[in-house]
Amino acid sequence: MNQVFFIIGVSGSGKSTVGKLLSKQMNIPFFDGDDFHPEENIKKMSNGIPLADDDRHGWLLTLNELAKKQLENRSCVIVCSALKQKYRELLSAGFEKNTKWIHLSGSFEKVFERMNNREGHFMSSDLLKSQIDTLEEPEHAITIDIQLTPEEIVKKIKNEMLDKSEFGLLGLGVMGKSLCRNLANNGFKISMYNRHVEGLEENVALDFKNEYQELSSVLQFDKLEDFVNSIQKPRKIMLMVNAGKTVDIVIDDLLSHLYEGDILIDGGNSNYINTKERFNNLKKKNIHFIGTGVSGGEEGALKGPSIMPSGDLEAYKKVQPFLETIAAKDENNLPCCTYVGPEGSGHFVKMVHNGIEYAEMQLLAEVFSILSATGKNPGEIADVLETWKNEADSYLLNITINILQKKEDNDWLINKILDKAENKGTGNWAAKTSAELGIPSTLIASSLFARYLSFYKEERLKISNLLDNETDYNLNLTSEELLKAYQFARIINHYQGFNLMSEASKAYSWNLNLSEIARIWTNGCIIRSDLMTELVTVLKESENLISFSKITEIIKKIRPSANKVVSQCVLNNIPAPCLSEAVNFLNGLSTTNSSANLIQAQRDYFGAHHYQRLDDETGQYYHTKW
Amino acid sequence: MNQVFFIIGVSGSGKSTVGKLLSKQMNIPFFDGDDFHPEENIKKMSNGIPLADDDRHGWLLTLNELAKKQLENRSCVIVCSALKQKYRELLSAGFEKNTKWIHLSGSFEKVFERMNNREGHFMSSDLLKSQIDTLEEPEHAITIDIQLTPEEIVKKIKNEMLDKSEFGLLGLGVMGKSLCRNLANNGFKISMYNRHVEGLEENVALDFKNEYQELSSVLQFDKLEDFVNSIQKPRKIMLMVNAGKTVDIVIDDLLSHLYEGDILIDGGNSNYINTKERFNNLKKKNIHFIGTGVSGGEEGALKGPSIMPSGDLEAYKKVQPFLETIAAKDENNLPCCTYVGPEGSGHFVKMVHNGIEYAEMQLLAEVFSILSATGKNPGEIADVLETWKNEADSYLLNITINILQKKEDNDWLINKILDKAENKGTGNWAAKTSAELGIPSTLIASSLFARYLSFYKEERLKISNLLDNETDYNLNLTSEELLKAYQFARIINHYQGFNLMSEASKAYSWNLNLSEIARIWTNGCIIRSDLMTELVTVLKESENLISFSKITEIIKKIRPSANKVVSQCVLNNIPAPCLSEAVNFLNGLSTTNSSANLIQAQRDYFGAHHYQRLDDETGQYYHTKW
Repeated sequence: MNQVFFIIGVSGSGKSTVGKLLSKQMNIPFFDGDDFHPEENIKKMSNGIPLADDDRHGWLLTLNELAKKQLENRSCVIVCSALKQKYRELLSAGFEKNTKWIHLSGSFEKVFERMNNREGHFMSSDLLKSQIDTLEEPEHAITIDIQLTPEEIVKKIKNEMLDKSEFGLLGLGVMGKSLCRNLANNGFKISMYNRHVEGLEENVALDFKNEYQELSSVLQFDKLEDFVNSIQKPRKIMLMVNAGKTVDIVIDDLLSHLYEGDILIDGGNSNYINTKERFNNLKKKNIHFIGTGVSGGEEGALKGPSIMPSGDLEAYKKVQPFLETIAAKDENNLPCCTYVGPEGSGHFVKMVHNGIEYAEMQLLAEVFSILSATGKNPGEIADVLETWKNEADSYLLNITINILQKKEDNDWLINKILDKAENKGTGNWAAKTSAELGIPSTLIASSLFARYLSFYKEERLKISNLLDNETDYNLNLTSEELLKAYQFARIINHYQGFNLMSEASKAYSWNLNLSEIARIWTNGCIIRSDLMTELVTVLKESENLISFSKITEIIKKIRPSANKVVSQCVLNNIPAPCLSEAVNFLNGLSTTNSSANLIQAQRDYFGAHHYQRLDDETGQYYHTKW
Repeated sequence: MNQVFFIIGVSGSGKSTVGKLLSKQMNIPFFDGDDFHPEENIKKMSNGIPLADDDRHGWLLTLNELAKKQLENRSCVIVCSALKQKYRELLSAGFEKNTKWIHLSGSFEKVFERMNNREGHFMSSDLLKSQIDTLEEPEHAITIDIQLTPEEIVKKIKNEMLDKSEFGLLGLGVMGKSLCRNLANNGFKISMYNRHVEGLEENVALDFKNEYQELSSVLQFDKLEDFVNSIQKPRKIMLMVNAGKTVDIVIDDLLSHLYEGDILIDGGNSNYINTKERFNNLKKKNIHFIGTGVSGGEEGALKGPSIMPSGDLEAYKKVQPFLETIAAKDENNLPCCTYVGPEGSGHFVKMVHNGIEYAEMQLLAEVFSILSATGKNPGEIADVLETWKNEADSYLLNITINILQKKEDNDWLINKILDKAENKGTGNWAAKTSAELGIPSTLIASSLFARYLSFYKEERLKISNLLDNETDYNLNLTSEELLKAYQFARIINHYQGFNLMSEASKAYSWNLNLSEIARIWTNGCIIRSDLMTELVTVLKESENLISFSKITEIIKKIRPSANKVVSQCVLNNIPAPCLSEAVNFLNGLSTTNSSANLIQAQRDYFGAHHYQRLDDETGQYYHTKW
């Protein structure tokens, strides 16, 4: 990847000498910023009038253009004092991730001495003082002391910036590997690491590097210390290891090799509570911790996943160029990656993503059951679903069609797959979290329990036999009605998912931007869909999907079909827990006077728990001697 | 409470002297066991033939009868060597909790010396040795060294057994107070304690004692150390404090005053995971910890709750007489209290009890909604429910009828109660635990979420308005059909509850006896019902309710009504999440080929998670390149 090396610092810090030497050794062009001043500026300077920020503006844009032009074909060195952050922002605008800042720094005395030792040069101490006062320490730069000789300085620059990687990735499982290739394909210089386990995991990183052309300049390791030392400071290291204890073990192992200011990114499906704890523990050691959801599976990770980072905003900014570059792009070509919020919020949001995903998958499974009960075979069902794309397109709908069309020998493959649905924890956490926070995420719970129930296969066979279950279905349903019921349940599912995030955002003061979260879910992730794209706009207006007028109108139109489908399933003994729960949920959510008053009365009756009254708005509690 | 003081120990330990002195000081009769031997025994002994166990049998029964007779009117002292445990069991059979064992104990040398110093006595060292060999150390006795003088020994007995309490209760909230009165009403000598909090909780124990006649001989405290020291060793102290941190704080405070072997009983609704941890921590300190579920509310605690203790069986045996005495009695007059199993199992079982309770309450609330939708007022609904008692009697049905009949001014009180159902944690834990353990407890989750949803009152009003919800119901239902649907859902609810315990029992190796758990829930607790009484028998035969033939037949008969009720609710926008879930659950549980195969295919498609096949019974995993 081509890069611009900006050598910056106060006058007299030796920028030109170092810049020229670096350009020579790297065989790339050298430019002195001062040579590009417009005539007015030269005139002012020669008359001893200091340049104002306005004077500099055009000049900085010229240098920015120069750099851009160079980047098209090669790297280059540009020397320019660039004392203020806003100058540096102008200089690098549009190619931030291809920019390297090298700041030559020294004490007043040292610079003053150097300056006035140079033949034909004289600098007033006032001017130097004013420059030092103006200097805003650059954050993203490598800072080098000018006590060193120019040769030593150049050696250090090359060592830090050229030989070292910009980004490290630890853990080369399915997702880790895909992310490495994605980073390398985007021109980042990376180091990658996989542990060495005798007989089980040997030379994983090396073998992987040799497998793919795009990894040829990647540095690979199976020794942790070497891996960490191969990365520029502050280190940016992404962990792609199994959630749980492994993350803690890896962090512990890493700690002795890290420096203050280094940044760890956990890209696994960690529990957000653990992420909060790790964030706080590492903060005490001045190590930044970015908990990041990554969705898209193997293919998404390779071609562009949806990324949900959280943690300190300042630390995030340092990894932002990497994450945004490798992320999927939305319909406006913006990255499907956004700063979600503080500490564990990124993993929380990913957990909810997966909860929504569980329900979306279960709804398709129920649709499949119902269409099967109407006598259709998988191929015919795929044909029906194909017609749904106009109104309900989504990644999951598409892969479902592909799955149902897949044949093996003369039968559909789906008919040969064992009907026990497994899970890996995030759906479970989502259900538990909503129970914990007091939020009714009934579709997530329903889908989770449907998976659990599928595991009772023996019991199912036994009980089906005992109950003489009918298999002669008498279903009075059109495909159009089923589509409406499916869409209805999906709206409820998305309502519940965003509601869970909204409530958690309040509970944890995360200040989540729901529309922005919907936006980064419009591509790259498993639950991308036309509905999600619509929600980006909806959620800008209202955190409550259902009361958004356009959606309210849709619900009114499709609700009767949802009711009909569910009642038909119930009368025919066809399990449709998630569709049923969607209908029941909206019925509950639109009940003005619910029978919860009876529950309060019962609690007061046997447990003296007291109750509130409709006719006392103060919220006072009452007890009755029943 | 009258008591029998058995003074026991080998010949020559001074039993008669001590027994006579004690009887004199307490002004109660004294009996020497040896005086009650039948003629055959006396003959044998005078011929130097040692008595066999068979010879002793009748004699021990005679002493047992003697003690029983005395207990009717007074306490007494009986002296008898009673060297074996089985002798002691015979002696105290039928009045174990009125028995005090005092074991006079000394070294061989000491006894031998005492014996042969007595005028007119001679004992061979062989006989003494054989007695010492025969002696089985009594566990439940107070053991006193015969080095002390008889006066000192009697003082010690009185101090330990008469002035000190048998049982301590800490925490005088609603439940703690009721349990104290229950213990006192049953004649136990207890100490009770409530903390002193300036201005908030002052003289709680004293005021409580003065309020009730039955507490006149109870010792009351607000200093922890005095409270603990007022209780006989090993101390038996029941904690009735708020679940959570308070329990740990109280245990910490207690620890410095406890001795090894003391027994703490946590009777609050603690989380079973915490109970397991506390059990293990206290075990290291040789303090026993009994985690105990207590159900029945204020009234149950007073008149007889259902009690679910767990922990070390040996420690349990020491508190068993107290817990069994204060517990409710089942239809065979057996206590509704049983040893549940190791460590946290008692609190686990109580958590499931409350989970079942949540669903039973929610089902009644749904029945109330449905009957309201048919146009009936609370009084008329109570009349309908009254007719259900024949087929579905339960404590909760009864209190629901009472609640619905309650009027205030000219309206039913239920109409004035705010419809936001609160909760205190156990339902939440039950739902989370079933998610954690991978067990589909859908009715518990449904009921919990229904309570959560009821809290969205403002949202409900808003959305009801937006959706123009119909209030003109078109329900085609009979009360008989509704009763069948209710019974159907209750069977599913109990199936799920007992299944949750059965699976936890396997996961934690608790070896729970489900029939026995059902038995202790037939009285005293909130979910007592005719159904529960039936389940005691059913669960002896089968851990799976649904496949028990009698219940299978009932399900077949009532399932169509359940389906009809749910479909009618769905078509009328009446929320019935728990009834719906019951129907969906049985549909899922009786599905031979579920659509979980599609979910496995989707997981393999986007996440390469692999799947198993119907045509490969080895369980091998496959991956398809979709």
